[in-house]
Amino acid sequence: MSVSARNAFAGKVTAVTDGVVNAEVELTTAGGDRIVAIVTAESVRSLALAVGQAAVAYVKAPWVMLLAGTGDAHFSARNQLSGTVSELHKGAVNSEVAIRLPSGTTVFSVVTNEAVLELGLKPGVAATALIKASHVVLGVAA
Amino acid sequence: MSVSARNAFAGKVTAVTDGVVNAEVELTTAGGDRIVAIVTAESVRSLALAVGQAAVAYVKAPWVMLLAGTGDAHFSARNQLSGTVSELHKGAVNSEVAIRLPSGTTVFSVVTNEAVLELGLKPGVAATALIKASHVVLGVAA
Amino acid sequence: MSVSARNAFAGKVTAVTDGVVNAEVELTTAGGDRIVAIVTAESVRSLALAVGQAAVAYVKAPWVMLLAGTGDAHFSARNQLSGTVSELHKGAVNSEVAIRLPSGTTVFSVVTNEAVLELGLKPGVAATALIKASHVVLGVAA
Repeated sequence: MSVSARNAFAGKVTAVTDGVVNAEVELTTAGGDRIVAIVTAESVRSLALAVGQAAVAYVKAPWVMLLAGTGDAHFSARNQLSGTVSELHKGAVNSEVAIRLPSGTTVFSVVTNEAVLELGLKPGVAATALIKASHVVLGVAA
Repeated sequence: MSVSARNAFAGKVTAVTDGVVNAEVELTTAGGDRIVAIVTAESVRSLALAVGQAAVAYVKAPWVMLLAGTGDAHFSARNQLSGTVSELHKGAVNSEVAIRLPSGTTVFSVVTNEAVLELGLKPGVAATALIKASHVVLGVAA
Repeated sequence: MSVSARNAFAGKVTAVTDGVVNAEVELTTAGGDRIVAIVTAESVRSLALAVGQAAVAYVKAPWVMLLAGTGDAHFSARNQLSGTVSELHKGAVNSEVAIRLPSGTTVFSVVTNEAVLELGLKPGVAATALIKASHVVLGVAA
């Protein structure tokens, strides 16, 4: 099965925290990247999500925010993946920016060309991808 | 009143599950489609959301992820609307894909042209729209 | 540090409501605009978010939905910022719409050109920006 999301992080569930309506699920990739997802408690039940289970975290590129510059701020986004800009594809209005993480994983983000200029994004520059846990979709093999 | 969201599903509230911060609200359309929304508990109070109430679920097209192919995976997204691609409008970078559901409702998604190719999306192909419950905005008549 | 989000609302935390998995944080700007964010309870702890603390609420422009016309409906989105369209930049498919609030703050939204037509958006027209609390990222100085 194919999914239209630009980012697909394969890994294993390493933690599940249940709430009344929502649950927080942590997935760790083979390379050691950790992705936290907020899903409904009902999804945890229907997918039988539990520690040790293989799963894939999907995130559309426009849902990824980027940071550049020195680390003088902290953010509420649970997923903060720091790496180096490896590719930049400029469109008329938006650019797709690829960030290569130390683990070898690449994270794709779509931001405005204006933001690319303001943040000085170009290959080789350090950048961090911010992904809200509530923007992650989890998939498991049937 | 007009709303900029490409998807507007009109229906009635068929379930409400309250949490401390968030609540889950299920809306069922006249055609039988069910849309689950996560809204704040405060919104449930301020909109007086209750079973039987007419409401509209709004979803912007870029928040809709698409699946194609055989069903060999399960996903955490609470809303999984399966149908057939009915229209495809290709832009420079992104395409708008319309999925017609068996109920007659059409769901619109914006995905990259790359995803359209990878998923083999074209009119007549089976596809599923995935919508996270936390990406749905509910509206009720004043 | 620079962030790729088009909207950055600086203010102070004026309320925190804790849940098991998520928490709701209210930020009030100097101009009196209030922005509600849903973040994970873990983020409240790691950022030490508390009433009185300075923080910035970030929202990407494509996550902002727009309303126009008379107020004959209520919406579940916790953030409803009403003002006047001050600028409109039309692209091939999407437009960036700037809404100036009475406080002087400007909110940026990206919507389809189709929505701009349907809603009759143009400078001087009244419009409301809807932002789901779960789409807000909070940042605090390190």
